[in-house]
Amino acid sequence: MPAISQRGMIIPASPIRKLTPFADSAKAEGVKVYHLNIGQPDLPTPQKALDALKSIGRRTLEYSPSNGIKPLRDALVGYYSKFGINVSEKEIIVTCGGSEALLLTFMSCLDPGDEIIMTEPGYANYISFAVTAGVTIKTVTSRIEDGFALPSVEDFEKAITSRTKAILICNPNNPTGYLYSKEELYRLRDIVKDHNLFLISDEVYREFRYTDEPYLSALCLPGIEESVIVVDSVSKRYSECGIRIGMIVSHNASVMGAVMKFCQARLSPPLLGQIVAEASIEGTEEYSKECFEEYLSRRDFFIEGLNKIPGVYSPMPGGAFYTVASLPIEDAEDFCRWCLERFRHKDGQTPEGFTGETVMMAPAAGFYSTPGLGKNQVRMAYVLNKEDLARALIVLEKALQEYNR
Amino acid sequence: MPAISQRGMIIPASPIRKLTPFADSAKAEGVKVYHLNIGQPDLPTPQKALDALKSIGRRTLEYSPSNGIKPLRDALVGYYSKFGINVSEKEIIVTCGGSEALLLTFMSCLDPGDEIIMTEPGYANYISFAVTAGVTIKTVTSRIEDGFALPSVEDFEKAITSRTKAILICNPNNPTGYLYSKEELYRLRDIVKDHNLFLISDEVYREFRYTDEPYLSALCLPGIEESVIVVDSVSKRYSECGIRIGMIVSHNASVMGAVMKFCQARLSPPLLGQIVAEASIEGTEEYSKECFEEYLSRRDFFIEGLNKIPGVYSPMPGGAFYTVASLPIEDAEDFCRWCLERFRHKDGQTPEGFTGETVMMAPAAGFYSTPGLGKNQVRMAYVLNKEDLARALIVLEKALQEYNR
Repeated sequence: MPAISQRGMIIPASPIRKLTPFADSAKAEGVKVYHLNIGQPDLPTPQKALDALKSIGRRTLEYSPSNGIKPLRDALVGYYSKFGINVSEKEIIVTCGGSEALLLTFMSCLDPGDEIIMTEPGYANYISFAVTAGVTIKTVTSRIEDGFALPSVEDFEKAITSRTKAILICNPNNPTGYLYSKEELYRLRDIVKDHNLFLISDEVYREFRYTDEPYLSALCLPGIEESVIVVDSVSKRYSECGIRIGMIVSHNASVMGAVMKFCQARLSPPLLGQIVAEASIEGTEEYSKECFEEYLSRRDFFIEGLNKIPGVYSPMPGGAFYTVASLPIEDAEDFCRWCLERFRHKDGQTPEGFTGETVMMAPAAGFYSTPGLGKNQVRMAYVLNKEDLARALIVLEKALQEYNR
Repeated sequence: MPAISQRGMIIPASPIRKLTPFADSAKAEGVKVYHLNIGQPDLPTPQKALDALKSIGRRTLEYSPSNGIKPLRDALVGYYSKFGINVSEKEIIVTCGGSEALLLTFMSCLDPGDEIIMTEPGYANYISFAVTAGVTIKTVTSRIEDGFALPSVEDFEKAITSRTKAILICNPNNPTGYLYSKEELYRLRDIVKDHNLFLISDEVYREFRYTDEPYLSALCLPGIEESVIVVDSVSKRYSECGIRIGMIVSHNASVMGAVMKFCQARLSPPLLGQIVAEASIEGTEEYSKECFEEYLSRRDFFIEGLNKIPGVYSPMPGGAFYTVASLPIEDAEDFCRWCLERFRHKDGQTPEGFTGETVMMAPAAGFYSTPGLGKNQVRMAYVLNKEDLARALIVLEKALQEYNR
């Protein structure tokens, strides 16, 4: 029997997946598990989008164009213009989720052996897509004590080599929730310009910002118009992660030409998802406003609650729906597993029908490349309703007390 | 501005895409273009599958499991058992179309620089996925004068090197429509076993066979159970190419483990497509029978018609809905473009409202890797109704007369 590929072996297994069997056992036991570990919004998909599905009149669910159906790309042009992003429908290619957008961007911009610089903690799957594309990710560290702000120019320049081809950012950031300031983005612009790099900007959390500043897309940075590739997705903003609709947006015709060749090979993005996405973009302003208000109030409630727990520290995230917090423990991986395997909280408020409660969190070490970093940190997502978030905070506090006893 | 990747440059542009602008111009001019160039079935999607879409009750279109929803995998277990393929739901991973299934199989089984052997003419996108995965495809030639039968063992062995890791077949074959015999498959089995290779078998046209022999899947070849990876898709068999649902099926746990890690990185296959696919599999026997009879009668009609045109030769394909035919011309690429650019047929049967008729075919050279082969051949798909096929045959005959005048 032939051996599998090396890359099949080195591609990292998801840090959360390792915990899933323990969560499943707890649930089988009758325990209520508060999932602070996932990035799947709990809010409903816009009704208008669900209705669009029911009114599909097609008799044959045929291939769509490789770059996506034109009505969707046209709707996106209008959507982007609201953020001051001026693109034509030809500068947008629809992909199978932000995931495919990332992979095809890497494939089109970098050759095997080339390097991408990103900040750590960072989205773990970037590493998997890098392995897939045969490229190397180098990290510069953002620190919890700085609120996960952009590392210094010197830190970036130390990481740049002759193989460096791109800087990759996620803004607002997964896992930290950090929202880059205008000044930080201009600093990145200068590095990209000085070193002739691509700037790959993952902007899937664009909608989730908790400041009064307008959003500054990497596509709006003057002087590097042709160097920027934006990776986007409708998943989070319309709570439709399952439809797998993302997009690549760039003014760089060579990059878009290369992406298109990869897209033609895989024939087309999902048709049904495109129909849902198109219906989600226009006429859903009220929905977006409600989502925003819900997440804002959850953020304020959750982060304040976290910081009230003795020994816990979370910066106040400016965007997305995640935070990376430090806990008064040494090994978050052990603590997260212990919560699922052993810890069961029960009091008068434990929901009826459950034998106890516990929390599931993502150990943050999996978001760092530098060994040893983030060992006492966890990523938490506030994608639960406020009642559940309140219980999760109580359960977490009790778990820390008992674990440290 | 940084340069794009080398692979972005070498990934082949689709041979059909080059002709598309000429087809679009012809249509804009009012010409009826008979599309013999595409692999998109014209038949409707099963009504049961379309109904499933309308009855989706979910309020949130959330991520599905990375290996696909269990009801779909369970339905597939039952489907495969009808072909004597005994697999469990754990041996099936749902992908974004057969395209992703191919790419992830290459990624999981082969390292950059490794080699795959396939027959030519072959599906052009295999080359694109190979470029994406950094692997090399070597071809052994099947010949129109042999009806595109499997090349000899000696031809395969001549192509095997120390980097050869897999043989890739498509059965029934795109583009030739050739259906491998039991004897040929056992011959492949022996090569795979002797040289410790993977056998990657693309079986998306399994349903379309025009013989009384039962289908022999590569998964049923004794003695190489762990070496076989089947790539599959619901696209063609239920005329739902747009939903992007394919699958990888293998008894090899190491391969499936590696595939799963790539799948976790891209999060999940399209949810809506999975719901449609699940509804398509059971209770659609009548639909499948009707499709089969339609394609069988089209095949008989179309291939017979082709062979009546002076100088045209097509073997009788045993499966799929394609054929590769030789034409009495020297340069099929030139002829195909000329048909779209210049040739307009008009007679009393030209459909009302059209200024003329022409045909669009795929020049077969794009399906060969060996330079110079297939220059006088075209791939044609019989995915038009019989009235249109009849007109296409007349138009093709007239076009050949005029082109050769």
